[in-house]
Amino acid sequence: MTAGSRRCIVVSTLAEACFYADHGYDDILYAYSVPFDKVEQCAVLAERLSLFQVLLDHRDALDQLRKRPLTRGLWHVWLKLDCANGRAGVLHSEPEALRLAQAIFESEGVELTGVYAHCGNTYSCKGVEQIHSVAQETTTLVLQFMEKLKAVGITCKSSIGSTPSCSQPISDMAKLSEVHPGNYVFYDVQQSVIGSCSLEDVAVRVLSRVIGHCPHRNQLLIDCGWTALSLDGAGKLPTGFAVIEGHPELRLLSMTQEHGRVEPLLGQLDYSQYPLGTLLTIIPYHACATAMMHPVYYIHSAGRLVGKWIPTRGW
Amino acid sequence: MTAGSRRCIVVSTLAEACFYADHGYDDILYAYSVPFDKVEQCAVLAERLSLFQVLLDHRDALDQLRKRPLTRGLWHVWLKLDCANGRAGVLHSEPEALRLAQAIFESEGVELTGVYAHCGNTYSCKGVEQIHSVAQETTTLVLQFMEKLKAVGITCKSSIGSTPSCSQPISDMAKLSEVHPGNYVFYDVQQSVIGSCSLEDVAVRVLSRVIGHCPHRNQLLIDCGWTALSLDGAGKLPTGFAVIEGHPELRLLSMTQEHGRVEPLLGQLDYSQYPLGTLLTIIPYHACATAMMHPVYYIHSAGRLVGKWIPTRGW
Repeated sequence: MTAGSRRCIVVSTLAEACFYADHGYDDILYAYSVPFDKVEQCAVLAERLSLFQVLLDHRDALDQLRKRPLTRGLWHVWLKLDCANGRAGVLHSEPEALRLAQAIFESEGVELTGVYAHCGNTYSCKGVEQIHSVAQETTTLVLQFMEKLKAVGITCKSSIGSTPSCSQPISDMAKLSEVHPGNYVFYDVQQSVIGSCSLEDVAVRVLSRVIGHCPHRNQLLIDCGWTALSLDGAGKLPTGFAVIEGHPELRLLSMTQEHGRVEPLLGQLDYSQYPLGTLLTIIPYHACATAMMHPVYYIHSAGRLVGKWIPTRGW
Repeated sequence: MTAGSRRCIVVSTLAEACFYADHGYDDILYAYSVPFDKVEQCAVLAERLSLFQVLLDHRDALDQLRKRPLTRGLWHVWLKLDCANGRAGVLHSEPEALRLAQAIFESEGVELTGVYAHCGNTYSCKGVEQIHSVAQETTTLVLQFMEKLKAVGITCKSSIGSTPSCSQPISDMAKLSEVHPGNYVFYDVQQSVIGSCSLEDVAVRVLSRVIGHCPHRNQLLIDCGWTALSLDGAGKLPTGFAVIEGHPELRLLSMTQEHGRVEPLLGQLDYSQYPLGTLLTIIPYHACATAMMHPVYYIHSAGRLVGKWIPTRGW
């Protein structure tokens, strides 16, 4: 997946960072506003690895880093900008954004490594045109911010990311130093609906078996509940919480902890087509949420199993 | 939690069964329609433990067990009845229900241990009266079925369960052999809304910290996303996905993988009340879903931490 490289990996938890560090990665970006109770853990990783990078969006977080100078090297810090995504980040247009960049740049023991914006607002897009529009807006705002930095004598890296924008990039993204998609490794039904990929590109499946016939409700039961898939697909698809591969006539209607209820989109189920034990192959709505649930993740390509992957969130 | 006993435990996955078996439990009920690909694993547990019980609701599943006679002892089988819950189980009123019970009873190498009904339909109740109504219906239907069995010369155990019905039991439940609640170990916000308990009875918390101030959106960010809580509370509470203890003025508006967005129910946030790093204590909507996400689960009683529990789903 990384073509042999053990550099340039982005994580969102310290459990992941530690997992990769323990397995030979020595260039890790912890792309999450530094939690104040974990500064010491970050410092230990920063002192241990060739490059451990952190991210912040508030002056108090910078103060936390300054209070814990590293015994070796500098704190490598990305400034998180909110460029209309509406999650973490100091708002790109706030004067504080530039002031905070300057404060990072000027702090002893700290390096302003770059400016980081996550365009998660591409997740509400439908189609390439809308994705391009969000990618353009985010890129433009980041590049404008880089100009403001340049005007006060600061140069550093720039980055945006999200699987939709990186799957359907716009030309201005070539002016950025880095991009950082995550979900693209597998894709999922959600990405196919957004327009990042086609359903055939999705490289993950959850295997499930028919465990019950419920003729009084015109339903099948399968051994796939929300512990297997997550509830992320709720209300999003005509086929329910996911897509059952090769069975466009079926809907995954509801899930409890370990059970899924499956019904036909139309008409009566022919139970002889689905004897107990039948294997049903499910394409998840959201691969990230599904991955959290599984000890092993099976990777498909062109309809064939090509590998497996073990999630690394640390549990 | 079991007062020292290592008997009479109910699980819904084989991973849990193996975990408990490896830690000294030797009386385990695998309360899940036997998946056909796991019959051999069930047989190994049945041959290893003092008592390993399985559950089924279809003749084909009985055939699977008969094809794999145990080298030691009998298959101990519960017949799963659907008594209006609408998930697993042969419908109580179907003639097949009685015929299947008879077939189990008459099968060589197999014992009909009992009749099992899960009244998960109590989860749509609001208040004690509605819970009593579902508990009464389920109990009555199971007891009527026991009479039908008796009429054909079969006696065995009877059981119903769900946390709401077992928390607010009706007198006829004393005529059953067993009850089997699960969530009651911790309770959660959902159970307090149903009427199983009060919010003060809930014994689980997720600890979260403020990691971001977003004055441009009148929001806080916390380090609690759906990987920490699950999405089970979506659209269910005036305070959003959960209850933030001691902060009735706050709503957990939305979650992504590792972030939660918090906003005031009314008015403007006073950020000085929530400096970065502030600890917020969250009472989950659904403890079962939350437990799946955590390596360690903290148990509270009367506002104090009284213990911790490690979920056993095997990953």
